[in-house]
Amino acid sequence: MGVAVIGYSFMGRAHSNAWRNVAAFYPDVAPVRMQTLVGRDGTRVEQAAADLGWAGVATDWREVIERDDIDIVDVCTPGHLHAEVALAALAAGKHVLVEKPLANSVAECEALVAAAAAARGRALLGFNYRRVPALALARELVGEGRIGTVQQARLSYLQDWLSDPQAPMTWRLRRESAGSGVLGDLGSHAVDQLHYLLGEHVTHASGTLRTFVPERPGPHGTETVTVDDAAWATLHTDSGVVASLEVSRVATGRKNALTVELFGTSGSLRFDLERLNELVLTQAGDARTSGPTTIMVTEPEHPYLKAWWPAGHVLGWDHTFTSQAADFLRAIAADEPVHATFEDGLAAQRVLEAIETSHAAGGLLTETGN
Amino acid sequence: MGVAVIGYSFMGRAHSNAWRNVAAFYPDVAPVRMQTLVGRDGTRVEQAAADLGWAGVATDWREVIERDDIDIVDVCTPGHLHAEVALAALAAGKHVLVEKPLANSVAECEALVAAAAAARGRALLGFNYRRVPALALARELVGEGRIGTVQQARLSYLQDWLSDPQAPMTWRLRRESAGSGVLGDLGSHAVDQLHYLLGEHVTHASGTLRTFVPERPGPHGTETVTVDDAAWATLHTDSGVVASLEVSRVATGRKNALTVELFGTSGSLRFDLERLNELVLTQAGDARTSGPTTIMVTEPEHPYLKAWWPAGHVLGWDHTFTSQAADFLRAIAADEPVHATFEDGLAAQRVLEAIETSHAAGGLLTETGN
Amino acid sequence: MGVAVIGYSFMGRAHSNAWRNVAAFYPDVAPVRMQTLVGRDGTRVEQAAADLGWAGVATDWREVIERDDIDIVDVCTPGHLHAEVALAALAAGKHVLVEKPLANSVAECEALVAAAAAARGRALLGFNYRRVPALALARELVGEGRIGTVQQARLSYLQDWLSDPQAPMTWRLRRESAGSGVLGDLGSHAVDQLHYLLGEHVTHASGTLRTFVPERPGPHGTETVTVDDAAWATLHTDSGVVASLEVSRVATGRKNALTVELFGTSGSLRFDLERLNELVLTQAGDARTSGPTTIMVTEPEHPYLKAWWPAGHVLGWDHTFTSQAADFLRAIAADEPVHATFEDGLAAQRVLEAIETSHAAGGLLTETGN
Amino acid sequence: MGVAVIGYSFMGRAHSNAWRNVAAFYPDVAPVRMQTLVGRDGTRVEQAAADLGWAGVATDWREVIERDDIDIVDVCTPGHLHAEVALAALAAGKHVLVEKPLANSVAECEALVAAAAAARGRALLGFNYRRVPALALARELVGEGRIGTVQQARLSYLQDWLSDPQAPMTWRLRRESAGSGVLGDLGSHAVDQLHYLLGEHVTHASGTLRTFVPERPGPHGTETVTVDDAAWATLHTDSGVVASLEVSRVATGRKNALTVELFGTSGSLRFDLERLNELVLTQAGDARTSGPTTIMVTEPEHPYLKAWWPAGHVLGWDHTFTSQAADFLRAIAADEPVHATFEDGLAAQRVLEAIETSHAAGGLLTETGN
Repeated sequence: MGVAVIGYSFMGRAHSNAWRNVAAFYPDVAPVRMQTLVGRDGTRVEQAAADLGWAGVATDWREVIERDDIDIVDVCTPGHLHAEVALAALAAGKHVLVEKPLANSVAECEALVAAAAAARGRALLGFNYRRVPALALARELVGEGRIGTVQQARLSYLQDWLSDPQAPMTWRLRRESAGSGVLGDLGSHAVDQLHYLLGEHVTHASGTLRTFVPERPGPHGTETVTVDDAAWATLHTDSGVVASLEVSRVATGRKNALTVELFGTSGSLRFDLERLNELVLTQAGDARTSGPTTIMVTEPEHPYLKAWWPAGHVLGWDHTFTSQAADFLRAIAADEPVHATFEDGLAAQRVLEAIETSHAAGGLLTETGN
Repeated sequence: MGVAVIGYSFMGRAHSNAWRNVAAFYPDVAPVRMQTLVGRDGTRVEQAAADLGWAGVATDWREVIERDDIDIVDVCTPGHLHAEVALAALAAGKHVLVEKPLANSVAECEALVAAAAAARGRALLGFNYRRVPALALARELVGEGRIGTVQQARLSYLQDWLSDPQAPMTWRLRRESAGSGVLGDLGSHAVDQLHYLLGEHVTHASGTLRTFVPERPGPHGTETVTVDDAAWATLHTDSGVVASLEVSRVATGRKNALTVELFGTSGSLRFDLERLNELVLTQAGDARTSGPTTIMVTEPEHPYLKAWWPAGHVLGWDHTFTSQAADFLRAIAADEPVHATFEDGLAAQRVLEAIETSHAAGGLLTETGN
Repeated sequence: MGVAVIGYSFMGRAHSNAWRNVAAFYPDVAPVRMQTLVGRDGTRVEQAAADLGWAGVATDWREVIERDDIDIVDVCTPGHLHAEVALAALAAGKHVLVEKPLANSVAECEALVAAAAAARGRALLGFNYRRVPALALARELVGEGRIGTVQQARLSYLQDWLSDPQAPMTWRLRRESAGSGVLGDLGSHAVDQLHYLLGEHVTHASGTLRTFVPERPGPHGTETVTVDDAAWATLHTDSGVVASLEVSRVATGRKNALTVELFGTSGSLRFDLERLNELVLTQAGDARTSGPTTIMVTEPEHPYLKAWWPAGHVLGWDHTFTSQAADFLRAIAADEPVHATFEDGLAAQRVLEAIETSHAAGGLLTETGN
Repeated sequence: MGVAVIGYSFMGRAHSNAWRNVAAFYPDVAPVRMQTLVGRDGTRVEQAAADLGWAGVATDWREVIERDDIDIVDVCTPGHLHAEVALAALAAGKHVLVEKPLANSVAECEALVAAAAAARGRALLGFNYRRVPALALARELVGEGRIGTVQQARLSYLQDWLSDPQAPMTWRLRRESAGSGVLGDLGSHAVDQLHYLLGEHVTHASGTLRTFVPERPGPHGTETVTVDDAAWATLHTDSGVVASLEVSRVATGRKNALTVELFGTSGSLRFDLERLNELVLTQAGDARTSGPTTIMVTEPEHPYLKAWWPAGHVLGWDHTFTSQAADFLRAIAADEPVHATFEDGLAAQRVLEAIETSHAAGGLLTETGN
């Protein structure tokens, strides 16, 4: 399988790392050729390709879509370019991996879902946290009924790089370049986890957005921040679960804290991305000995772990992408479904837009369309 | 000072414990006579008085209000009886301590505030968590600017005694006896902490309530639950802080988890009542060495600690009531203000009612009147 | 039952607190009269007695031993005075509670054991940590085989008040006044816990002592420290358990960290006094879901908890003394044994002396005599 | 630089991973050719080489030592073969990386040290935990005096795969194949960390070994275990630090717990490999706000982190090998020293042997020769 990655910054590096390592950890999957790295700046993409292990480069993504030696197109561009590239790649019969978010609007997501349904190739949306072993284990345990029926959930994704009001302006704080603020950037991960762990969708949402620091120092003087610094929502699912969501870039002391907590009728689960090798399971039972159990998710019995190191050797953030690549390659070879699907991306985007709609309406409970 | 406590169940025991011990730990306060314990059942109140150290008993609270040897009337009845007793005691010139909540409605709270303002005696509302040393320290640190300007807060109070849908009906689940569900019972503590720690009030609230289990087994068959099992809100203060609030009785694995987190522009604070001797402080600064610092709040430099044991010896839940009694006695002696005031109780009740109003209006942002 | 406490500083206060509160929490035990507080300084003992709730005072401990209205003599003097007072009290037919350590030498301990065996009254040694609910639960779980056969144990008691080489000289750092250093002061608690939790004794020990700071500033200039700042030992029990012991007063950042860890063939237990309401239990089993479980030891099913507050309300350090007093009163009433016995004190002292002997012999494994 | 790795099981895979990824994260180092993977079984090494990214294979390690296209020989064989291969490679002028332990005896280590001193190539010993960012940061902080003068240390390395007495016999439990038991396997890492963090050596040791389960089920019936299951030691350094060491394979509930704690005169440091992205620093100071600070060692200001992902994205166990490879390549290019040196391996081995000697002598304090 020949692969091309479009983009070579943060996500391009993370995906390149996955393609470079997938065979070493998942020897059962089809061999991969790291064919082409794509970037607009020829000099820089050449250097990146050399460092990251790519055979060649291109400066126009259209080129790789036309080539026969490329089977998989992996889209790591900024979100507002996802749709155009992915639609073209699907139309050309390629297998397509799109880094999250699927796109910046429900309309674009719907177009991508339609294209994926009609396409010859497989489509995968890169919600990489689905391959955190602890979260994959959490989904298994929920499915097995280990915590009973989930009633309440509590999700947050907290960072702190904007705590200081003097932190400078960046492209991420302008609506035209970033699409949205923390809600789209981090909230999408949290909403997808809720859908993934529960196996059902959010149907109604009520929400609030806030820009705590409305102006920040820019390169040419003070500039207006046009996206949200933090957002809060109450989410309701089909089956009646109520989930709270809180996302922030001003949560001082939290570096990358995607936290998930599910409360069921006979147990609960808790996760924090800052300790991604751990899952906390409580099972109601003997009152004398029950309590939160911190499972170190590094045993061969745990999802994905057989592929990696002996028991007790912890994984890092980037290993999730390698496992994601393996799942994709296996699905392609077996011609079987693979998640996250583009539908999953659409479902998440609908929730985010419902939160924005609710905020505009003073917090009113709003249908998501899921 | 002669004291009478009205009520001898959970809160009556906790307050009796405080009066019995206050002189031993706070020898500077005026000596206290544990004069009368009041309860309707003469036999049981006699037994309780003997166990708890009271000199005598009464079966009608009106009796102690009339007596000259009673200086302090401490109201530990159910919430719907607070107003009547406290108003009578204030009118009789007694010093009055009312266990939280001040009352079950804004209207009653307003009457109590007015009465306290006009009264000769001191009035104290028993939000006992204000005397958790870690929370008192948190307030000091906020006031000193150690975490900068607070922008975002995150509060929860989570218990799990209703997780199981088969957990039986109790008086706490009937609106007529309990006034409200978890929102009033636990939410009031959380809202008061927000007011206390920030030194300002919630002016707007948006909220949702939910009864996950609408019917429960009662002594005479299935019965309808008429209060909330869980509640969520977004709260806005005068200065622009946004706080999330989540309270629940179905949060499996959480026993008594009042959690508070304040995010400021240069630091943050975190607290969990299940580890009440600890406060977690993060101070932004040298990126190489900063992070959450777990302060063991058991040093003589910490609030209230000089009165207790040597450094490193942890306190429990009930010590908060003893410190509260000491503060009350000291305020009476010095004729000085003491918090929580009845105004604090009114302010909290207004927030709770605004959350209920917002819920009824589909989540719409609602003014609290504070 | 009339009680006298000898001593009114730290331990005298802690024991007075227990006598003052025992009836309120353990109404089944015989009523107690807080008869006499004994101290050499008449003025100060008068004040202490008033604060702590004692009916009267005495300045000579011999006086209370002769009085008929005193049934229980509670010895809270410095350790080197324990033997004389306790022997006299036992001889006079009193029930005797001795605060740990039983005495400062094996020889004195043996005399006390003999006297207790011959006495009419009950004798109790105040190893109060046996009444920490989490440790009492640990003992139950070991006895029930929940962790299989214990093979390895790990104990420490770490404090940090001597970390700074400029911390001043005190009576605790002079052999003549303190008997020994940290080994006797803190090591005795840890050794007793090992005996208590396992239900067997240490038979051999190998150890090392160290005084990190040999001189400290005293009131009249530099003074030589004549006791240990830290100690280490390897302890072997009858059944073949090997336990490590580490005690220190220079463990910067540890305030009062008595930690215990027991490793069994099918599980383990972990405890830290700084979080005394928690016990961590691991049970080997399903590799997917096993791990350390943090039990919040605040349920009515847990030892001592029914006497206190509703589930989830944490206890503090001083509650252990109240529960100890209740057990003592109950044992006296029922004429039944109560632990810790004076034999327990002797067994612990033998281990401490074997560690000192081993240290003097370059670390050689030494029989304890147990 | 052409590289050959000798061995393709656990360590061979971990080192191959490092060579495959080093350029992607450390683009400043010389490009590496993954030339030859060496293993005795031709079929299996072919498959491993294909999966792991090697250009070719060999079945005799002597072959790669003679080849001109191999610059670096990376020895991942079992420990008893290290010396022969490494001596030959050094003699042939290769740069040599030896996985820990350097060798199974002090005598072999001394020969390797001598050979390295005389060699043209660079020699590196693979104590990979020196490249855990949190431990590298700990060393920096000690060096900067952030915790004052270290007085006491506490090290352990605890696993639990032998807790169950029915766990089967393996080559690791036979002296002839494994050299030693847990002391050599895990103790070596802990001793090296002590040397590394303090920058000085252990000069005296006192120790105890224990085989808790003397016989285990083997493939041909019950077999005698000839190595230790657990070991304990007290270690003394040049400057007077006393360190305790405890290593075990029966520590139920601990999976891969290398823990390090350093207590200094003005602070302390704590680390646990199971949470390898965290370092806990306590700095004595303002008693109101000091306590253990959990530093998330994932900021660009932290050692090695600039090479990896943005702030807050955690690393795993295997990343340490990649950073180690980068440091080695950089040292080769600059012709500069690189640690761990073979002297470091000798120093650690001397401590392990002194512990065994002490054990044989009943625990007597023993000189290490360092």
